[in-house]
Amino acid sequence: MESNMFLNLSALFDPRSVAVVGASDRPNSIGQRTVTNLVEHSDFVGELFLVNATKDEVMGRRAYRSVTELPCAPDLAVIVVPAAAAVGVIRECGQKGIKFAVVLTSGFSEAGDEGKRLEQEITDITRQTGIRVYGPNCPGLVNNNRGIGFTFSPAYKLDRKAGPIGLVTQGGGLGRTFLQASGRGMGIGLWCSSGNEADLTVSDYINHMVSMPEVKVIVTLLEGINDPERFVQAALNAARSGKPIVALKVGKSEYGIKAAQSHTAALSGSAEVNSTAFRQLGIIEVNDIDEMIDTAALLARAVPPTDLSVAIYSFSGGTVALAADMLGEAQLKLAEFTPNTLDELSRLLPSFAAIHNPVDTTAEVLVNKDISHASLLQVARDPNVNAVLYPIPMEYGDTTLAACTDMVRVQAEVDKPIIPVWMSDKTGSGYDALVQQELVPFRSLSRAIKAISRWNQYGRWRAGFDSSWKPALQASAETGESAQDYQTYTEREAKSILARAGVRVPTGGVAATLEEALHLSAGIDGPVVAKIVSQDILHKSDIGGVRTGLRTDAEITDAWHGILENVRKADPHARIDGILIEEMIAQRGVETLVGVHEDPLFGPVITFGLGGIFVEVFRDVSRRLLPLTPAQAREMIAETRCYTLLKGVRGQAAADIEALVQLLLAVSDFVIQGPLSVHELDLNPVIVGPEGAIAVDAVLIASKRNS
Amino acid sequence: MESNMFLNLSALFDPRSVAVVGASDRPNSIGQRTVTNLVEHSDFVGELFLVNATKDEVMGRRAYRSVTELPCAPDLAVIVVPAAAAVGVIRECGQKGIKFAVVLTSGFSEAGDEGKRLEQEITDITRQTGIRVYGPNCPGLVNNNRGIGFTFSPAYKLDRKAGPIGLVTQGGGLGRTFLQASGRGMGIGLWCSSGNEADLTVSDYINHMVSMPEVKVIVTLLEGINDPERFVQAALNAARSGKPIVALKVGKSEYGIKAAQSHTAALSGSAEVNSTAFRQLGIIEVNDIDEMIDTAALLARAVPPTDLSVAIYSFSGGTVALAADMLGEAQLKLAEFTPNTLDELSRLLPSFAAIHNPVDTTAEVLVNKDISHASLLQVARDPNVNAVLYPIPMEYGDTTLAACTDMVRVQAEVDKPIIPVWMSDKTGSGYDALVQQELVPFRSLSRAIKAISRWNQYGRWRAGFDSSWKPALQASAETGESAQDYQTYTEREAKSILARAGVRVPTGGVAATLEEALHLSAGIDGPVVAKIVSQDILHKSDIGGVRTGLRTDAEITDAWHGILENVRKADPHARIDGILIEEMIAQRGVETLVGVHEDPLFGPVITFGLGGIFVEVFRDVSRRLLPLTPAQAREMIAETRCYTLLKGVRGQAAADIEALVQLLLAVSDFVIQGPLSVHELDLNPVIVGPEGAIAVDAVLIASKRNS
Repeated sequence: MESNMFLNLSALFDPRSVAVVGASDRPNSIGQRTVTNLVEHSDFVGELFLVNATKDEVMGRRAYRSVTELPCAPDLAVIVVPAAAAVGVIRECGQKGIKFAVVLTSGFSEAGDEGKRLEQEITDITRQTGIRVYGPNCPGLVNNNRGIGFTFSPAYKLDRKAGPIGLVTQGGGLGRTFLQASGRGMGIGLWCSSGNEADLTVSDYINHMVSMPEVKVIVTLLEGINDPERFVQAALNAARSGKPIVALKVGKSEYGIKAAQSHTAALSGSAEVNSTAFRQLGIIEVNDIDEMIDTAALLARAVPPTDLSVAIYSFSGGTVALAADMLGEAQLKLAEFTPNTLDELSRLLPSFAAIHNPVDTTAEVLVNKDISHASLLQVARDPNVNAVLYPIPMEYGDTTLAACTDMVRVQAEVDKPIIPVWMSDKTGSGYDALVQQELVPFRSLSRAIKAISRWNQYGRWRAGFDSSWKPALQASAETGESAQDYQTYTEREAKSILARAGVRVPTGGVAATLEEALHLSAGIDGPVVAKIVSQDILHKSDIGGVRTGLRTDAEITDAWHGILENVRKADPHARIDGILIEEMIAQRGVETLVGVHEDPLFGPVITFGLGGIFVEVFRDVSRRLLPLTPAQAREMIAETRCYTLLKGVRGQAAADIEALVQLLLAVSDFVIQGPLSVHELDLNPVIVGPEGAIAVDAVLIASKRNS
Repeated sequence: MESNMFLNLSALFDPRSVAVVGASDRPNSIGQRTVTNLVEHSDFVGELFLVNATKDEVMGRRAYRSVTELPCAPDLAVIVVPAAAAVGVIRECGQKGIKFAVVLTSGFSEAGDEGKRLEQEITDITRQTGIRVYGPNCPGLVNNNRGIGFTFSPAYKLDRKAGPIGLVTQGGGLGRTFLQASGRGMGIGLWCSSGNEADLTVSDYINHMVSMPEVKVIVTLLEGINDPERFVQAALNAARSGKPIVALKVGKSEYGIKAAQSHTAALSGSAEVNSTAFRQLGIIEVNDIDEMIDTAALLARAVPPTDLSVAIYSFSGGTVALAADMLGEAQLKLAEFTPNTLDELSRLLPSFAAIHNPVDTTAEVLVNKDISHASLLQVARDPNVNAVLYPIPMEYGDTTLAACTDMVRVQAEVDKPIIPVWMSDKTGSGYDALVQQELVPFRSLSRAIKAISRWNQYGRWRAGFDSSWKPALQASAETGESAQDYQTYTEREAKSILARAGVRVPTGGVAATLEEALHLSAGIDGPVVAKIVSQDILHKSDIGGVRTGLRTDAEITDAWHGILENVRKADPHARIDGILIEEMIAQRGVETLVGVHEDPLFGPVITFGLGGIFVEVFRDVSRRLLPLTPAQAREMIAETRCYTLLKGVRGQAAADIEALVQLLLAVSDFVIQGPLSVHELDLNPVIVGPEGAIAVDAVLIASKRNS
């Protein structure tokens, strides 16, 4: 299934033969620009067919009146005719046996109901004929590593730098922003813009890039995900191949979701769950295009270490102090030099230089090239150093050119990355040298530190990646439930169900009569709690519907009558289902919460964190897609700040964290494999103390699983 | 005092006559470079005297052998002779009656003990002769608004753009980075680099800039503050003049502090207290040079509104969605357009454009200049809009030039800022036009949003600024205490002292005998608590040294004997001072903490936040320099997340927040005006509930105030 989920797209990205349907002579028309890009600005050497409904010749080449007239079926048809005509053309292409169509035309689902209908027709045609469609409503496909572009963009010819980055976007504009990272020395080898995704999606392009050796880093700009299962599979394939994916998701805030929705029709899960899924899949999430470029550039330049130690090196004391500051604030580690490095640096550098990391060579070094190169090389070769951050605070003509040339020289001599930061708003020959040599200079210290942090995070994530894990994604929609089929279980029903699933809950039961209550409490060790069970009473404690610490039959009898009287006073018409008699949890511990809800994209998501009244105040929670592995359960506990409480603060005994891990795993198993299709589960509080983890309250909304 | 605290520095910044001491012909010497910058690259028209100890002519001009030989006392001496000689020269200058010396020479306190001694001599000379010294160990003084530079920097001639920014740094390198913001269209009118601050400090330069009408925004880059009182006064003067200060403090993390200390000798308070002080003084704190430039540029372009509403406008759907996202995440507000704007936009723009904010004109507008200008102007003129954010996602030659030209045109027609973001790593004629017209394009969306946030924060801060407030700053050092003079008061003593100061504490006292205990409890309403008082018992509860809820004489008697027995078991040699009998606080409420400590720079600082075991976990605290105003007390409560708890969550009654305000004000008064010089005060917990705020525990370290 996993291997068949995706198609080989080689013929789309690098076709031997292409037809342009809608090819035109008319200056500045989409058809004319598309052909010009292919004929004049591309290195395309395959066979090219031009199709024009009314002409026999276009741009001095033979033109065919229709696809059906072509002498053979080319690998790819590039379609630029208007939307209404495009659908028929795609059908003809499919019938002709053409494998792929790139549909640049707009006027489909983004343009209203008629467009939606036309787009559905395209989807139908792909199923009927087997043709696969890229687009519609997209700026095209750019394969810089092969020197070809199927696009009408007048900017195509300007941004043709080959390189190790694969870029997958939905829209066009921001993709161009990314492509222009060539201005900083980064080459984008392949750019797919998926447009409306009538057929092929970002998942297809990402997955294919995983298999392309020339692509070292995949970058994707998403407005929404239309096929979560395939997206997850593509991401897992990337993770297993050790190929990083950097992603920017538009639509995180209320404003952004609104704006993105007006721009695309893709599904948008909650931003928090998206981030959870990305993190779990090893997708590196960023927040802006510059961060995408910075992060991708560093990942493309070097494999991130698991345990990173950075050297800072520059010729300005204030600059290295500022850089060290930011490194510290980002919780990154300054490398400790070996004695040998310190000896060499003290030999090479002036006496007033700072030779301990961060290294301030002082400006003296700028006039002595040999010392500059030798000291930088010494730092870069220190075995305790994984990366060298070299901020250049200003443009100083030949002086900064020399510093940059040293960086380029040293980079040729070591494997670890020399990371330049060009801090000035003025650029010059030094900056140009870094760009030329593809060292992709960062444009500010904070941007560099952010990228290094993400690079490091990816290195650590990869070291702990469990390649056998994959998320369940089974949303209830797939098993055919609708919201109406769900039922809300009573607290005691929920607890009994969870107890059978291995979750520890207080023992007890609902008593319909006082005799039953006394009988139940006789079977419970220690004091009990009595709680009214009524769907009409929301705040049980507030109206006197709860009594705690009951030890004797007399106390239970007194509580029974007292509770019923209080309830009757509060609401004479309240329906009463009985009184819940439960073991009173004496254990002191941390009040945590464990919850599961269904995300429309990523299926069941588990949440753990500090419970009680602090939930809303601190939102101290961590999340994971299900199923949970034991390692993930431990991680998600350790990620919260209440982990400190669980470990025991101020002399309090540590909680039994392993019991909490087991509870989380039992919940995961219950949701994934249990007898119910769970819509929502809330255990709040789960008291976690030295004697274990126990779910004191439970809300369960679920339905019987169809099987 | 406040008016006399600072000197008028006009003659330093714009002298009518200058002597360069150490002027030289020797190519590339400091002396030669300094004279060349003044003679060849400056517009200096005043009288210039060159002084050289061995020559009569330098660079074709007459040279004097010493300062004493000069025919008159110039306004300013620029001194570039080596450190050992410089001290004598400064003395001569002072004796001659020269008002100011700019000492570029290094080799003073940054270079070891002998340097420190020489620097002390300089300080002494300023006191003896009245000369005021700028430096030493600094790259010089650059007054671009007058076209003059007293500096040896070979880069001086390159970065001479005049403008509305006053820049004050301690080091040199990062100052140059900032100066090169001219590459983005920002002019720095005046740059002071204070170097080692043997005499004049950043505070002097900031304060003088407050009085300069040509300086609209003051920017400062600090490694440490040597004169907190004057710094605070300069900042208050700026605040009262409505002139914003943007500050970057190096030395925030452990690494940064280490690196900054190796670079300067200035005092460094804790980063958190620094930030507190900055915020309270209206100083806008930033974390990187690019942020300094971005923030200063926006502040210089327009006065920030109190209540900001932003319009987003561009020709790419993905771009405006991303911008809206970031705006939302930064909790900034998208403006709601008036019906008139919407009508006009729907008339002007294509039917598939998004006319509601954020505006996506679509790329169609790029080919029609009139529509582009008219629609941007319409948006900018909407009365609900305070600022227009216009991100340009790519360099597109003439097309993006046209967009930028429209921005420049519209900016000439409206007062509110049109804020361009040039997102691409490629620049072109459009970018150049923005730079040329000083629209200072941001280089990424996230940077723009960050700057807009700070601009907005400053607008809001200014609206609430209480111009009569100033911090006490009275550190105990000033009143002559040393750490040894402080005493730690017992819990009960501390509570009694605080009770007299108006802080509510539990009533009670220490009983030496059971009879006293019974007598004390008889005077207390409701149940009491008994606690062992012994300096040898740290964890009272753990050993059974605390009993609560004691109501009857029998219970108290039992507790008395029980506690003493437990203590004896735990530590037979423990010294026992008695048993504390106190009112038991029955009130349910939020456990908060109130603390005061002394910062070495900014004096007494009050901390408020969530107390109990959550202190270490969430660090949910806010801080203020003392004294507190009632408004500041309310603000600092509202800033914490536990404010939500105080207001009442999940149906709990709201706490008496006004009582907490009064408690904070009482603590402030006690520290500022009370009988003790407070070194440390910790009230944890302070229980804040519906019935008031009460300090349940207290630690006080203080000494009698000298007066």
